[in-house]
Amino acid sequence: MSAVRTILLDRADVAALLTLDECIAAVENAFRQHGLGNAPAPKTLGMPSVDGGFHIKAALLNSSSSFFAAKLNGNFFHNGERFAMPNIQGLIILCDARNGFPLAVLDSIEITILRTGAATAVAAKYLARPDSSVVTICGCGNQGRVQLRALSRVLPVQRAYAFDVVQDERHKLVRELSQELEIDIEPVRDLSTATRMSDVCVTCTPARKFFLHKNDVAPGTFVAAVGADNDDKQELEPSLLACSKVVADVREQCAAIGDLHHAIDAGLMRLCDVHAQLGEIAAGRKPGRTSTEEITIFDSTGTALQDVAAATVVYERAARSNAGSRFCFQRS
Amino acid sequence: MSAVRTILLDRADVAALLTLDECIAAVENAFRQHGLGNAPAPKTLGMPSVDGGFHIKAALLNSSSSFFAAKLNGNFFHNGERFAMPNIQGLIILCDARNGFPLAVLDSIEITILRTGAATAVAAKYLARPDSSVVTICGCGNQGRVQLRALSRVLPVQRAYAFDVVQDERHKLVRELSQELEIDIEPVRDLSTATRMSDVCVTCTPARKFFLHKNDVAPGTFVAAVGADNDDKQELEPSLLACSKVVADVREQCAAIGDLHHAIDAGLMRLCDVHAQLGEIAAGRKPGRTSTEEITIFDSTGTALQDVAAATVVYERAARSNAGSRFCFQRS
Repeated sequence: MSAVRTILLDRADVAALLTLDECIAAVENAFRQHGLGNAPAPKTLGMPSVDGGFHIKAALLNSSSSFFAAKLNGNFFHNGERFAMPNIQGLIILCDARNGFPLAVLDSIEITILRTGAATAVAAKYLARPDSSVVTICGCGNQGRVQLRALSRVLPVQRAYAFDVVQDERHKLVRELSQELEIDIEPVRDLSTATRMSDVCVTCTPARKFFLHKNDVAPGTFVAAVGADNDDKQELEPSLLACSKVVADVREQCAAIGDLHHAIDAGLMRLCDVHAQLGEIAAGRKPGRTSTEEITIFDSTGTALQDVAAATVVYERAARSNAGSRFCFQRS
Repeated sequence: MSAVRTILLDRADVAALLTLDECIAAVENAFRQHGLGNAPAPKTLGMPSVDGGFHIKAALLNSSSSFFAAKLNGNFFHNGERFAMPNIQGLIILCDARNGFPLAVLDSIEITILRTGAATAVAAKYLARPDSSVVTICGCGNQGRVQLRALSRVLPVQRAYAFDVVQDERHKLVRELSQELEIDIEPVRDLSTATRMSDVCVTCTPARKFFLHKNDVAPGTFVAAVGADNDDKQELEPSLLACSKVVADVREQCAAIGDLHHAIDAGLMRLCDVHAQLGEIAAGRKPGRTSTEEITIFDSTGTALQDVAAATVVYERAARSNAGSRFCFQRS
């Protein structure tokens, strides 16, 4: 077996091999398997460094075959100015979970972006009103774009409000996505007016203090809280979570690093107040939205379940189409 | 920075770039930095799979520069018979700890073998009697070979006893290493006779029940307990640990998965009975051996400190000599 080779896939390969629709389907399946008890709880490992740190997220998934993935990301938020490098960069190793062989090493950037949008789309299928047509996006970076694209795949989106503290970012998103998605997108400076008119509200910012207030969210809204993935990040007013139906990607992870964490810290929620994990809903074991009036919140901290699902799609397509490069690590 | 490339190193590259002597020096420095408080505690993440599992070990080290390494190994002990694959295989990702960039992806097999031998050599420098000339090796696989080679680098070894439950393995090690190391090596069937005549005893087997008994270890012996790296593995009689000076690679890890774990479970030791971590001794903060009569034990569970130290040596040599291959993961 010394000739067995590992597939290497750069960012462009990954982008070419993974469509958002496929990513949504794969991520939904991963959450469903998790909800059915077929996938163990994903795990994380963190190591701080100077001005940043490393995060490893690992998960095992049985789909067509059995795969394990570990994503190693470095998070260094001065990279752009200091090194002209992405703030978040890293690699995913995908292994055959029957024998440990490293099937592929993939750049992580594209998968991290897409699988985060995909999770919101999956959550929206179960937690947004099916007729949701108006969306507010808070945070007009790459993730804001993917969130809007992903929502447009699963909801009849006709209008979007683009909010960002940086005016240029708001306008850039509007220019780029209005035509692509064929919807009306309006840059907004006043967030509360926009959210009160919205059916769906996505927060995907690096905020460390909540900015989406309870009184600014209308009955029946679906909120995707995407930005908080660390214990010092926060986007939602804790009392908003306390009066809503809260769904976690992974309950304990949200209690540690999601917006849920702040609601628990404030004494407004307990872990048992979380309605469900997304996988339980995708598996049909718990209901999603059950009324047009309730506010539903998806606390999205990002899990390796999504990474292994997306990486598996990319690997299988690369293997079939002979895309990417090949390297034999075990040559001896 | 889109042109920045990651160095890819296969098993043969790693073997060519890393000498045992350099590995010993790098591993000693890593433990010393750990003992000085300059390296955070290494971390681990485990995920079981069918008939095996995955282990991630991660550590950060400041040496010439600042590096972070994560080693992902699959451990599947039927791989040989089922897939003609190594039972333990995987990759190491070495990153620049200032910005997270993945500097290199290396096959893990060679480093795992060498750095484990290197840790024993470092421990022997501080814990064996300097005149130690007789060594017993229990377990004549690849690790047994490296252990004997490593000990020969730091002690005046003249005679070795090779013990293995499989006769062929004993004889193979004797044939291979007698000439290479220019010492007398004798295959033995009776372990206790050998260990009683030895100054150093290394256990590096997959045993799940102890086989090195307290009464078979002479006063003044240095014992390196290398095999136990999982909570169901055991090589040393718990009462042997209880009456010896026990040094851990990483205290909490040994209490979880090393031979120490069984001594604690048996109620014969507490965590505070561990004399020191190896790094504290290498840093001069705690004494090593202080008498010719005491029995010293190094509980070696294997840490990412060793991996990041060895991987850094390999990476720096590969970068200087243009060895290995190059791949740009961030091409977009």
